[in-house]
Amino acid sequence: MKNSSYRELIFAKWIVPLEGKKSILSDHCLVKKDHKIEQIIPADEAIEIFPDCNRIELKDHALLPGLINCHTHAAMTLFRGIADDIPLKPWLEEHIWPLEGQFVSADFVKLGTNLAIAEMIQSGTTCFNDMYFFPDIVAQTAESLGIRAAVGMIMLDFPTVWASGPDEYLSKGLKLADELKYSTLISPTFAPHAPYTVSDEPLKRIRVLADELDLPIHMHIHETQHETEQSIDQYGMRPLERLSKLGLLSPRLIAVHMVHLLSEEIQSLAELGVNLLHCPEANLKLGSGISPIKQCLEAGINIALGTDGVASNNDLNMLGELRTAALLAKGASSDAETVTAWQALEMATINAAKALNIDNVCGSLEPGKSADMIAVDLSALHCQPVYNPVSQIVYSASRSQVTHSWVEGKLLMKDRQLTHIDTDQLLEQVSQISQNIASN
Amino acid sequence: MKNSSYRELIFAKWIVPLEGKKSILSDHCLVKKDHKIEQIIPADEAIEIFPDCNRIELKDHALLPGLINCHTHAAMTLFRGIADDIPLKPWLEEHIWPLEGQFVSADFVKLGTNLAIAEMIQSGTTCFNDMYFFPDIVAQTAESLGIRAAVGMIMLDFPTVWASGPDEYLSKGLKLADELKYSTLISPTFAPHAPYTVSDEPLKRIRVLADELDLPIHMHIHETQHETEQSIDQYGMRPLERLSKLGLLSPRLIAVHMVHLLSEEIQSLAELGVNLLHCPEANLKLGSGISPIKQCLEAGINIALGTDGVASNNDLNMLGELRTAALLAKGASSDAETVTAWQALEMATINAAKALNIDNVCGSLEPGKSADMIAVDLSALHCQPVYNPVSQIVYSASRSQVTHSWVEGKLLMKDRQLTHIDTDQLLEQVSQISQNIASN
Repeated sequence: MKNSSYRELIFAKWIVPLEGKKSILSDHCLVKKDHKIEQIIPADEAIEIFPDCNRIELKDHALLPGLINCHTHAAMTLFRGIADDIPLKPWLEEHIWPLEGQFVSADFVKLGTNLAIAEMIQSGTTCFNDMYFFPDIVAQTAESLGIRAAVGMIMLDFPTVWASGPDEYLSKGLKLADELKYSTLISPTFAPHAPYTVSDEPLKRIRVLADELDLPIHMHIHETQHETEQSIDQYGMRPLERLSKLGLLSPRLIAVHMVHLLSEEIQSLAELGVNLLHCPEANLKLGSGISPIKQCLEAGINIALGTDGVASNNDLNMLGELRTAALLAKGASSDAETVTAWQALEMATINAAKALNIDNVCGSLEPGKSADMIAVDLSALHCQPVYNPVSQIVYSASRSQVTHSWVEGKLLMKDRQLTHIDTDQLLEQVSQISQNIASN
Repeated sequence: MKNSSYRELIFAKWIVPLEGKKSILSDHCLVKKDHKIEQIIPADEAIEIFPDCNRIELKDHALLPGLINCHTHAAMTLFRGIADDIPLKPWLEEHIWPLEGQFVSADFVKLGTNLAIAEMIQSGTTCFNDMYFFPDIVAQTAESLGIRAAVGMIMLDFPTVWASGPDEYLSKGLKLADELKYSTLISPTFAPHAPYTVSDEPLKRIRVLADELDLPIHMHIHETQHETEQSIDQYGMRPLERLSKLGLLSPRLIAVHMVHLLSEEIQSLAELGVNLLHCPEANLKLGSGISPIKQCLEAGINIALGTDGVASNNDLNMLGELRTAALLAKGASSDAETVTAWQALEMATINAAKALNIDNVCGSLEPGKSADMIAVDLSALHCQPVYNPVSQIVYSASRSQVTHSWVEGKLLMKDRQLTHIDTDQLLEQVSQISQNIASN
């Protein structure tokens, strides 16, 4: 065939490309060709140039890049709300770890990830960065449902249902990374769990391998005060200093949480190009504290956002998370001008794509990038009037206003209906397993 | 007629009465008789006793007391998102006050309040405590739409579109209070705006009148650091000390914001029975700071919640606000056990009713109280599985899951449809006025 490519015109009341400027385009059209964005042009021009193309009309909507949830433990949806109002240490040691030991399996991860993906699509997420057991199952589930994901080659010192120790975590992880070599949707990351659960030797190996394979490293760091104190007891230094000595502080690192930071640490992170992954709601809910986001922004650190697992959130709603990020940074720093609506949206899109090293593929609506995008209907009564659509998206809109979602140009949700997921069947399966867990 | 009363049975998957215990009733029925709650009994008993009554079946829902938004400036919905990411002082002086001077009128207040009420009903609020110009219009609008409200007799030292000075604010307010004497839905409060906008003489008069008329006093206090510093410059003392000397610190007082508090002030507020009205999202958004809620709870202060006006929130979503309250207190105090899901729900219901002195009428589902209640559908995918419905309501549910709302036993929303408001007409009017405002 001479020309089998498929072009589609998407007209939206507003297009917010997040291409590095504060552009809000009215009466424009995004021209999608196959799975990519071809161009964004005035609506009347599009009609003239492409009179015969299929059209989607989004009359009350803003079209923007799909949100990137840059820190998840997707399968933990199955533990939603099972242990609330409890601090991190007893929450992990007395509740989550025992439950995981008893229930987590390949089937559990498949079902939990499926539920997570359904929830994420419904709330505007088109890519998630996961860390959990059975990352092979997470990868398969994401690929089969058409959502973009980064999956972590998880690493712990101790045995779990997934592996017996560092050697097996690594060999299973590397096997997965190899299998993902040709996937356009799923990419691997190294995912050493945290400084307090992974010792120096495995971290050194990961550092070398990450350089060789050119992959990000996804790790929980400085989540609680307790973690930093324990590290001083055990290693004679704070975790960040230890990771620095191990050569891990680089633009490869996606440092999750980073609640407890000294000024000199912030400067050093900025100089070394480390990515900060902010999970405001989970940090609040577990009483871990509030990350000094204003100072990190001013230092020039690339900041992205994540929900964390639902067991500490309790949802995977990035539209809510970016609102919390914008509000919390202002209140915590007594500066209403920090983390503006625009900055919050960037954290949830292009900044995350940079952290994952996929900003050449997604994170903004620009010609040549993959058509990973969402439409948000701003006609809801609680978004009226609309003086500024970006304000309404960040400060007023709910996840239920996300009506359409595309990844690689394919519709994953249309008018709130998921196209690839049988939700009735999914909820029936969730109901069955949760009865088992509850009767435990 | 011998017996014209009307009884209706409401069956819900869960009933959460918030009657002072952590009760979650399964397979129960709320029996509504006329506008009141008659009893809550097991479902099979209800069917046996009242076989012929009309039934409403809420198979996936939690039935709970209607939420009380205890601090609003309802009509400001028309300024939603018009001035974001700006600190309180320039936000007020350079944006909001000039806009109010130019646009606020009786018609503006009617339309803005109408929009606010529609939004509040859709997000689970059945009662709001308002402070704005034209409180007579607010009262009429609320009464005509069937929602419960407390309306503030606003007081400022300076002239506005509503009154020329303290004498006129007071005479207009008292006239309104008199008119409301026989309303079961609308009650008046005294509403001196803030310590920095109302001088000693009008405050003394309000104190005497509030005692005489047995009414609450609704006032912004200690919202910003600037406010406390300015008071020290002007009066030689912090605002709370000044209000104490004026005799205003009592169980009548609904003290809004209370962000900046000393330990001894917290103790004194608790001893004097002052009600604290927490607006976490507005305090964050304007960079005012974070109220020390954990310490206030521990001191025994009655704490209720409000959204504030949408111009600083930017919505009137109490379901979101109680989630923020629960998360924020934990993060700010580094204590995951403070403001539990239950406590957050109490702040948004019974505690607010106590602050407004209407807890004999509403705030919990108990026999003899008015049937002010809402149903929240927990079947949404992002609320699954449901191990604990209260956790899901507080930490996972969205406003769009509120399906039914009753005030005084009358349905204000049924299956997400507002019964008393023509939303198309409303949105058309909002669109017209917002075009005027935007072109300003």
